[in-house]
Amino acid sequence: MQRLRVGILGATGAVGQQFVRLLERHPWFDVTAVAASARSAGRRYRDAVQWISGGAIPDSVADLEVVEAGQSLPVDLVFSGLDASVAGAIETGYAEAGVAVLSNARNHRMKPDVPLLIPEVNPDHAGLIDRQGFPPGGMIVTNPNCATVGLVCALKPLVDAFGVETVQVTTMQAVSGAGYPGVPSLDILGNVIPFIGGEEAKVETEPLKILGRFDGEVVTPLDARVSAQCNRVPVLDGHLASASIGLGRRATVAEVLAALRAFRSPLHDLGLPSAPERFLDVTEDDRYPQPRRHVDAGGGMTVSVGRVRACPVLDVRLVALVHNTVRGAAGGAILNAELLVHQGRIRARNQP
Amino acid sequence: MQRLRVGILGATGAVGQQFVRLLERHPWFDVTAVAASARSAGRRYRDAVQWISGGAIPDSVADLEVVEAGQSLPVDLVFSGLDASVAGAIETGYAEAGVAVLSNARNHRMKPDVPLLIPEVNPDHAGLIDRQGFPPGGMIVTNPNCATVGLVCALKPLVDAFGVETVQVTTMQAVSGAGYPGVPSLDILGNVIPFIGGEEAKVETEPLKILGRFDGEVVTPLDARVSAQCNRVPVLDGHLASASIGLGRRATVAEVLAALRAFRSPLHDLGLPSAPERFLDVTEDDRYPQPRRHVDAGGGMTVSVGRVRACPVLDVRLVALVHNTVRGAAGGAILNAELLVHQGRIRARNQP
Amino acid sequence: MQRLRVGILGATGAVGQQFVRLLERHPWFDVTAVAASARSAGRRYRDAVQWISGGAIPDSVADLEVVEAGQSLPVDLVFSGLDASVAGAIETGYAEAGVAVLSNARNHRMKPDVPLLIPEVNPDHAGLIDRQGFPPGGMIVTNPNCATVGLVCALKPLVDAFGVETVQVTTMQAVSGAGYPGVPSLDILGNVIPFIGGEEAKVETEPLKILGRFDGEVVTPLDARVSAQCNRVPVLDGHLASASIGLGRRATVAEVLAALRAFRSPLHDLGLPSAPERFLDVTEDDRYPQPRRHVDAGGGMTVSVGRVRACPVLDVRLVALVHNTVRGAAGGAILNAELLVHQGRIRARNQP
Amino acid sequence: MQRLRVGILGATGAVGQQFVRLLERHPWFDVTAVAASARSAGRRYRDAVQWISGGAIPDSVADLEVVEAGQSLPVDLVFSGLDASVAGAIETGYAEAGVAVLSNARNHRMKPDVPLLIPEVNPDHAGLIDRQGFPPGGMIVTNPNCATVGLVCALKPLVDAFGVETVQVTTMQAVSGAGYPGVPSLDILGNVIPFIGGEEAKVETEPLKILGRFDGEVVTPLDARVSAQCNRVPVLDGHLASASIGLGRRATVAEVLAALRAFRSPLHDLGLPSAPERFLDVTEDDRYPQPRRHVDAGGGMTVSVGRVRACPVLDVRLVALVHNTVRGAAGGAILNAELLVHQGRIRARNQP
Repeated sequence: MQRLRVGILGATGAVGQQFVRLLERHPWFDVTAVAASARSAGRRYRDAVQWISGGAIPDSVADLEVVEAGQSLPVDLVFSGLDASVAGAIETGYAEAGVAVLSNARNHRMKPDVPLLIPEVNPDHAGLIDRQGFPPGGMIVTNPNCATVGLVCALKPLVDAFGVETVQVTTMQAVSGAGYPGVPSLDILGNVIPFIGGEEAKVETEPLKILGRFDGEVVTPLDARVSAQCNRVPVLDGHLASASIGLGRRATVAEVLAALRAFRSPLHDLGLPSAPERFLDVTEDDRYPQPRRHVDAGGGMTVSVGRVRACPVLDVRLVALVHNTVRGAAGGAILNAELLVHQGRIRARNQP
Repeated sequence: MQRLRVGILGATGAVGQQFVRLLERHPWFDVTAVAASARSAGRRYRDAVQWISGGAIPDSVADLEVVEAGQSLPVDLVFSGLDASVAGAIETGYAEAGVAVLSNARNHRMKPDVPLLIPEVNPDHAGLIDRQGFPPGGMIVTNPNCATVGLVCALKPLVDAFGVETVQVTTMQAVSGAGYPGVPSLDILGNVIPFIGGEEAKVETEPLKILGRFDGEVVTPLDARVSAQCNRVPVLDGHLASASIGLGRRATVAEVLAALRAFRSPLHDLGLPSAPERFLDVTEDDRYPQPRRHVDAGGGMTVSVGRVRACPVLDVRLVALVHNTVRGAAGGAILNAELLVHQGRIRARNQP
Repeated sequence: MQRLRVGILGATGAVGQQFVRLLERHPWFDVTAVAASARSAGRRYRDAVQWISGGAIPDSVADLEVVEAGQSLPVDLVFSGLDASVAGAIETGYAEAGVAVLSNARNHRMKPDVPLLIPEVNPDHAGLIDRQGFPPGGMIVTNPNCATVGLVCALKPLVDAFGVETVQVTTMQAVSGAGYPGVPSLDILGNVIPFIGGEEAKVETEPLKILGRFDGEVVTPLDARVSAQCNRVPVLDGHLASASIGLGRRATVAEVLAALRAFRSPLHDLGLPSAPERFLDVTEDDRYPQPRRHVDAGGGMTVSVGRVRACPVLDVRLVALVHNTVRGAAGGAILNAELLVHQGRIRARNQP
Repeated sequence: MQRLRVGILGATGAVGQQFVRLLERHPWFDVTAVAASARSAGRRYRDAVQWISGGAIPDSVADLEVVEAGQSLPVDLVFSGLDASVAGAIETGYAEAGVAVLSNARNHRMKPDVPLLIPEVNPDHAGLIDRQGFPPGGMIVTNPNCATVGLVCALKPLVDAFGVETVQVTTMQAVSGAGYPGVPSLDILGNVIPFIGGEEAKVETEPLKILGRFDGEVVTPLDARVSAQCNRVPVLDGHLASASIGLGRRATVAEVLAALRAFRSPLHDLGLPSAPERFLDVTEDDRYPQPRRHVDAGGGMTVSVGRVRACPVLDVRLVALVHNTVRGAAGGAILNAELLVHQGRIRARNQP
């Protein structure tokens, strides 16, 4: 297969850096362009970035010259880690120029013709791309909010098996979800902050679109209600969601566990490089999953589920853990791109 | 008023130490006896205890000789921080000997004739004491589990104003709730543990008894269902509860806020030394309450409530914060004792 | 005594907020003016400040209108928590206008005619004020860097008793030393950063001036060498310094302990409101002092010293702990002002 | 090469678990026996162990039956993670039975005929084994205290190039160094403990032996003095050492950096499976090394060195970081075993 040329928008930010790290030695994609704000443009990436991880910047990217986001890029697709304050128009610009845009920004997520995509959950929603009307190669595909992802992945088997009508979820979210510099240490050391701006609205709406039904024309959201309370906790990586779920039909805990375990990822056998061996890792050890101990399961792409038990108020309770900067952000977008390559929707453009 | 002689059971443990600290310079009570396991008996308190707080042991207690818990004590009342593995029989023994027992242990909490008492919430439940049948002066009165307290205090005004039918609560609990040495740092640094053994059952049952109706003979539990998910977080002090509540009748957020703010503590004007100026502290600042910043409100006796808002699944949501080792343990027991002294139920026994 | 009118420069910053908190209910000083950058000017303090502590803003200050720092202020003295990038000229301006400036900024600290003052250590250095040449009432007096203070307070008795020639010190410093937002949580959670920009140079030079001899004209620095390595650790408040010290003459550990314990604060009996009961708290408990457990000793104004023992390389080792935002910043400046009021150097100006 | 049969002593403890993890899929060694206290004996490893890491227990070990440490084992070598309270006699017993003992315990470290071995530093000290007098195959070889290792690895190039006469070191040590349950979270959250029992004595003596000269008969310790102050910090893994060093002859910072960079590991080209690609990783980025960001360099076997600069008191300063449970414990012992296999000192015994 011909390797694809990839640009990263917002490449110097926290999400952008995660794209750079995860795409190092990717078997299909080569990072050939990095774009950021005008302030960074014209500098080498290694000079423009404040590299967070402490490790080495991948050589292939370190010496690239940063261009201003919005400028024409000789690439087949871009991953966008742009800030929401600027992402909207810039991403649309690239799509109109025939570039596939895989965006982690929230701007386009809820638009009717934009897929809000988790490959194992709603791969068919990619069909919305056909309705976007961009020139050949142009498209906008989004991945969900980092706290949404873990919850939705855990819900999907239950939606399929029993239906889901109500969800009460309280999240405990890692500081890396706020980017860099993000959460001041004075705010979070030994503390919990019971509020994350804008987060609850996303967790209450995005799942309904993702779990909705695509009829070839539009996505009809899942007919359910989600109540979310989002907390920041002094954890580095890994959003934990504690959920109670009202099912469409009664089910025993054993049936719920069986449904979670029986769920078969539609990516199985597709050979997508970033697809984890196990989509869901279900445990019956009461102490698990824990962010620090399980966040890296499946290279950060596996969602861990535990504490499945009956709920005295709704029907069933569970805890879901997702790596917020891998599966919940850059890794999710990369897997989306891999799916679209597999579907033939993303391919190499004519070299300029 | 004659000062009362106080013994502390389990005085060398984490809760016992908190009793010692909070009773230093108490205007009504003098700690005149400390009891612990046979291993500590016969040693001076200062030698027997591994003093956690880092400050100085109160002089009046430091030189007391530790006696074995269960031995006869020349005191008017005892506070019990005994471990549940031994608390049951020992506490009963003291009550049978005519000593008032104020217990933080779970053993007797759910017994029909034992008050599970929060003075501002159910002071009338103290009437159960008359049905215990112990000799004069003998009684067992318990305070609730530390995670229960914050939730119940926040629910009380809603029960009174609207009724409460269902509660979904996810707690984020401090490590001090597990005592000392308690939670290993290897388990909790940068982590969340989605399980606390035995805790959820307590949070699901104790509120119903506390919020129940006492008719002079028995307590009829509140007819409601509570679903609790309890998490340990890397916080020192302060249990945060994120709750969704189904009310008995519809109410707006404004009405709920008004009910919380209008709630008048029955302790107002009683002059109990440990009663905080404000029973509930209600904030509309989205970022609050936070454990580290607000746990010490009212000397640790005030419960802080925030994020009151509508719930898409049940009716209303809120967050409540309680100081788990003060209001939620030793401080709660001391306030219970003060109420009982005020009611005339605890008084000085004849000196031996 | 006539109360003095106080202004706070940089009042919205972290140090400025600490001034506001510590001056609430001060028996001598009234905060009557708050100054900050042009961005905040014209707004009420309560609206301009992002109040860090979580508690309530003192009422007397909350409604003051913020003026731009540098503007004329009808006050007797100002406390400056200005950023070093602007502090120099602004502070000089106030002194030239006849206002006493008590500064926490580093700009003027090492100037020959500016006292770098710790009241218990070098109160006579206040005499430098007479050489500043400002109009009546005008002066600039500084307090040292927060990491310097703990070390110098522990060294002072040794300088007096034995002389000090060399100091090797490694600090472990709290995040509050970096202000707000300060250290990103992504950098410090579960981590140590072995570098704090500019800090080591201050810790290596400021002690020599403070411990130097003032002959009525100039301060001759202590003839000693200090080697400092400064680390940031995930602690909220409290800088810990681990030091090895080469003495001017040999001394046993017992002699060093005796010297530390025998040191008599020159503030004793002066009745300065912010002077702690104990200047130094010396412990022989190996586990202490610890930041979280002892930082608040003496209301944050006591320096705790422990682990005094022989050193195989130099002569003696010890550990010193200081509350970096109280004794090491705002509290130190306030105590300086109290000393100068006591000395008659600061007094009420004619009311305008 | 014939694979070797390995036993693990103290297999259920924290160090023992680390041996199990690091030996999974080892190319030379098969774990065929696990030994622990009598309490665990007779149970399957998976049932006897409280597995700390949260991941899965390696299958090949999980079903082994735990035997009591001290019992005869059909193995070629044992790794000992035994507690010092029992390690001495048990380890000697295995050596007398002709088994090679690679011990992480402190008991035998300072004995004249026991190598205290770091393969890159003093591989020739293995020659001491010939003087132990155990039956063929029997030997005791120890690895140093976890805080000693990082310091010694950083000192070695300086000893070779310039000589080292004095060392002042302050350590900031991770909680994993205390095993499990180890440090209570109530002691270390947001805190520093300026004391670790017994640690300073080890750090002051072990380096002298390791860096000493072996003349074929005895090891003459390095003629130097080390002063150590050991602190516990809220870090999971990674001991950071901040050191000032007095050299045997003057050297510029550039020369010291050059010596550190030029040091050639004697393991280079030997093909030992656990030897890292780089023995030392030297950085000139002031912010590094940091425990959380660099502890896993070289799979935890690389020692990171930074902040090399002149010292106003001694000659040169630096910071060294070591993974305390890998290079500083189990990984170090495994590398020792690999060296001894390479040297022909450990080989397969006749199968029983």
